Amino acid sequence: MMKMMSEQTSKGTLFVVTGPSGAGKGTVLGRALPAIDKIHYSISATTRQPRPGEIDGQSYYFVTHDRFRSMIDDGALLEYAEYVGNYYGTPVAAVDSELNAGRDVVLEIEVQGALMVKQKRPDAVLIFIIPPDFSLLEQRLHSRGSEPDDVIARRLEKARSEYQSGDRYDYIVVNDVLDEAVRELTSIIIAQRCKTEKRIDLLR
Amino acid sequence: MMKMMSEQTSKGTLFVVTGPSGAGKGTVLGRALPAIDKIHYSISATTRQPRPGEIDGQSYYFVTHDRFRSMIDDGALLEYAEYVGNYYGTPVAAVDSELNAGRDVVLEIEVQGALMVKQKRPDAVLIFIIPPDFSLLEQRLHSRGSEPDDVIARRLEKARSEYQSGDRYDYIVVNDVLDEAVRELTSIIIAQRCKTEKRIDLLR
Repeated sequence: MMKMMSEQTSKGTLFVVTGPSGAGKGTVLGRALPAIDKIHYSISATTRQPRPGEIDGQSYYFVTHDRFRSMIDDGALLEYAEYVGNYYGTPVAAVDSELNAGRDVVLEIEVQGALMVKQKRPDAVLIFIIPPDFSLLEQRLHSRGSEPDDVIARRLEKARSEYQSGDRYDYIVVNDVLDEAVRELTSIIIAQRCKTEKRIDLLR
Repeated sequence: MMKMMSEQTSKGTLFVVTGPSGAGKGTVLGRALPAIDKIHYSISATTRQPRPGEIDGQSYYFVTHDRFRSMIDDGALLEYAEYVGNYYGTPVAAVDSELNAGRDVVLEIEVQGALMVKQKRPDAVLIFIIPPDFSLLEQRLHSRGSEPDDVIARRLEKARSEYQSGDRYDYIVVNDVLDEAVRELTSIIIAQRCKTEKRIDLLR
C-alpha cells in the first residue's frame, strides 16, 4: 500500500486542454507553457494537410490515412478523433514515458478525444477553454480565414454539442482577456502540483 | 436541483490557510492577497496579548476570556482553538455574509481550528503551509525571539502531531523560496475559481 502510494505520487499528471475550435486554446496554452517548468507538450498525429507555417514533428506529426489506421490497430494512440474529415490522435508511448518519469504532460486536443482520455485515465485533468460568448466563436473562426463557410458551420454545430458535456471537464477557462486566461491555465497546473496526494511524502 | 446548483455556484469559496507555527503562513498569505481580487480576509478573535505592532480589529480582535466564552456560548464562532494557553476563534457572521454575497473568504488559523472548519464545511479548501524541512521550524520560532523556550518546545510538539493529519488537507504549500510559495497559494485560489462546478452556468 505504501509502495503503491509512493509510486502514484511520483508519477506526473496528465493535463488535457480542450475546447471548441476557435476558443483560442492553442494561443492560451502557448503563452502559458513558458512560465511552467517540467512539463511536456504532447505532439499529435494528424491526417490533415499542414497549414502555412506548420512544421512536421513540431506542430503535428503529419501522417497518411494508412499510417494513422495502423497506429490505431497497433494500440499506439491514447485517443483519436475524426474531425471535419480528418483524424487526430495522441501517440501514447511518449505520454507514458514522460508520466512515468514523473513529468507532467499536456495534451491540446479536440473535445471528443479529451473525453476518451478521461474515460481511460480518470486521473487526467480536463480543462475546457471557451470564449466569453458563444457568438465570438463564429467571429474568430471566420477571421482565421483558413476554412470555407460550410466547415465553419460544422465546427459551430460541434461546439454546441461540446458545451453539453461541460460537467465532464474539471476546469473551465474563459478566454476573454488573454492574460487572464493564461494566468488561469497556469494556476490550474501549478495548483494541481500542490495537491496533498502529490506531496504527502513531504509530511513523513 | 437546478436551483440548488445555481445557488451553490453563486456562493463564495472558504479557503483555510493553516500550518505549524513558524511555517510562515502569515507572510505567504500577506504577499499573496494583494494579487487576488474579490477576497475577504477574516479577522480572528483571540484572548492572547497583542504583540508589538499588532492592532486591534486589524491583526485580531483582542478580547477577554469572558467575552470569548460568551462568543462560544452564543454560537458566534465558526471554529475556535486553545493554543499555548490562549484562545483563537473565527467570528462566523462576517464569514457567512461574504460567502453568501458570492465573495471568497480566507481564514488564517491554527490546524486544530482548520480541521474543525473542514468538518462543519466540507466544501472549505484547506491549505497546509510547511517549511521545506522540519528542523527549520525550530530555527524560525527561535529567531522570532518573542517566546520562551518551553513555549517553542510545545509549538514543535504540536507541529509534529499536525503533520500526522496531513491527508486531511486539500493542498500543501512548501515555503522554501517565498516567491514560489506565494505563487503556489495564489494559484490554488485562482484555480479553485475555475472549477467546473463554479462556472457551469457559463455553458448554458
